[in-house]
Amino acid sequence: MSRTYLDWNATAPIRPEARDAMIGAMDLMGNPSSVHAEGRAAKALLERCRAEILEAAGAQGYDLIFTSGATEAAATALSGGWSRIIASEVEHDCIAAHAPLMGERWQAAGVGRDGIVPPSGVLARDPGRGDLVAVQLANSETGVRQDVPGMLAELRQSGAVMLADAVQSFGKLPFAASWQPPAIYMLSAHKIGGPKGIGALLVPQGMDLAPLIVGGGQEMSRRAGTENLAGIAGFAAAASAAQRDLERGEWDRVAELRKILENLLEAGDRPTISVGKDTPRLPNTLCLIAPGWKGETQVMRMDLEGFAISAGSACSSGKVRSSRVLRAMGYGDGEADCAVRISLGPATTEVEVRAFAEAWRSARDKAARRRAA
Amino acid sequence: MSRTYLDWNATAPIRPEARDAMIGAMDLMGNPSSVHAEGRAAKALLERCRAEILEAAGAQGYDLIFTSGATEAAATALSGGWSRIIASEVEHDCIAAHAPLMGERWQAAGVGRDGIVPPSGVLARDPGRGDLVAVQLANSETGVRQDVPGMLAELRQSGAVMLADAVQSFGKLPFAASWQPPAIYMLSAHKIGGPKGIGALLVPQGMDLAPLIVGGGQEMSRRAGTENLAGIAGFAAAASAAQRDLERGEWDRVAELRKILENLLEAGDRPTISVGKDTPRLPNTLCLIAPGWKGETQVMRMDLEGFAISAGSACSSGKVRSSRVLRAMGYGDGEADCAVRISLGPATTEVEVRAFAEAWRSARDKAARRRAA
Repeated sequence: MSRTYLDWNATAPIRPEARDAMIGAMDLMGNPSSVHAEGRAAKALLERCRAEILEAAGAQGYDLIFTSGATEAAATALSGGWSRIIASEVEHDCIAAHAPLMGERWQAAGVGRDGIVPPSGVLARDPGRGDLVAVQLANSETGVRQDVPGMLAELRQSGAVMLADAVQSFGKLPFAASWQPPAIYMLSAHKIGGPKGIGALLVPQGMDLAPLIVGGGQEMSRRAGTENLAGIAGFAAAASAAQRDLERGEWDRVAELRKILENLLEAGDRPTISVGKDTPRLPNTLCLIAPGWKGETQVMRMDLEGFAISAGSACSSGKVRSSRVLRAMGYGDGEADCAVRISLGPATTEVEVRAFAEAWRSARDKAARRRAA
Repeated sequence: MSRTYLDWNATAPIRPEARDAMIGAMDLMGNPSSVHAEGRAAKALLERCRAEILEAAGAQGYDLIFTSGATEAAATALSGGWSRIIASEVEHDCIAAHAPLMGERWQAAGVGRDGIVPPSGVLARDPGRGDLVAVQLANSETGVRQDVPGMLAELRQSGAVMLADAVQSFGKLPFAASWQPPAIYMLSAHKIGGPKGIGALLVPQGMDLAPLIVGGGQEMSRRAGTENLAGIAGFAAAASAAQRDLERGEWDRVAELRKILENLLEAGDRPTISVGKDTPRLPNTLCLIAPGWKGETQVMRMDLEGFAISAGSACSSGKVRSSRVLRAMGYGDGEADCAVRISLGPATTEVEVRAFAEAWRSARDKAARRRAA
């Protein structure tokens, strides 16, 4: 049976450019820390990749530290000995999971029904020097975007540092303007068509940030361990390709497909909620609540029909839980339990989107009839 | 100019099996945490790879936790809230670098002139419950092997846990017999022909070990973050291939080449010291001191002649320092500064070894004449 992949926010298929770059890097035998010709060639590739990602991100004035992914990047930023961490309630698990470790030094900033963190909610915590404020650029489940540049303007005089999770927005949105201190950014390769297991932390030049992993002088002594050169090469190639797609307007096309899909799924007499529909969101993400039809069941049903979608976040080892993000937005368990995420990518076609809508509506009607019977 | 790579302990060329496995994994699009078919296929590959490495290692009764490399594995093990860490003075930087962070809770166990950690040196520290004893299976610079099973027997009643760095010995030595609690092992893929940026921690089943990186339920909640699936696939393929090489006696052949090389380099009237020559060592490693001729100069000279070798450890961002390991063994700076490491691999040929010996002796004689002039 042919399959349709509509779970790009969980992970994106690898781009051919990234695949080729990884194979090239694999065949380069040196250790970037070795001084001989093989080592220098590996080091040169590493530094070319670093420059390529900084260029693709438009992140002037920033240092890029490679990590094993956004989760390690977040853990590095969060374990920096902050007085307090003020984090939005809709942050990804890779940030939210640190709350229990921080105890009272962790303070949550709520979101409105629209999923937006009001700056007032952060400012009410009175952020100051030594504090870290964690607010994502866009949410992985709903696609809802935060006004990070606006938040940065509010924070500039406070002395607090911002941690901005750019994992879902990098490559999908132009945000060169966001690169303003005092913000640290997390990136991940596999959300933009690079390999899994590589990411980065972008730190304003001159900002002190202690390493999480010590043991060698790699990454300017900010992250020890022999570098994942194949992963890094794939990341750089994917970043450039993603930037090219963005400039070409690929995501505008994706946004049109999302609109078609949203209209099709909302049509008919059964009520659905498209979360964040009237809020600035990622162009590819549709979070849909179909009351009475569990998200988990929807995912399994659509999987059998040949469509890959998700419920909640994919970063929980296959365990599907009611969405913490939707609950933070004020949805009840009955709603949050019945949400799915459909996330499109540059390879998604209108034919796929229409086929999904038809299959989903048919399955929903069957499920409703079963419940009524 | 043709190149001869004799720096296998820094990193090994990728094995074709690992390269193929990585490409196959790249083309698998799912996130192992997703519940749909694509996710389950990724998860199945992940678990097959885990089982394959455990099988290759003969590590029955152990859990395998994938990490971004041995450095992260070490950092995870070391940050486990130990009362004290008793570490040999010849441990790799990825362990030794934690000493300053531990302050007085870090205690060093010395080595003899032969590079061996006497059990008495560890026992004198009176290891007990809550303590971690870090002793490597083999040293990366000298190849000198420690009697880890013997040390484990001594420690069994103490309640202390052992951290055994198996990075250089895994795949080169049969050591299934070492897999005895209470020891934790670190492995790295790129030393055995797998990719850089992936490694593992092997933990006795049932042993509690807090994660270093939190944020998701991956790796049985012991290491968060989307898994480096391509790297893991390459690691597993390399582990199986390395085990097959070992069983075929490939490393006996390498040991013969090392003997030829050692004899050729020691011949003549200029004194050299082959470190650890009369001590159990890895089959492929030759640490040679040529008094009066700086290791750094040797590396650069031989690089120009087409040979890749190293001085000290490669994990220090290209910075060459006098070897901490050799100084711990009692060599003076004048000797430690003049050491190089030549490390062979299964692809090394007798022709290469003889060509290296000739080039090295000729360069040494020239350097000696320059000094005399």
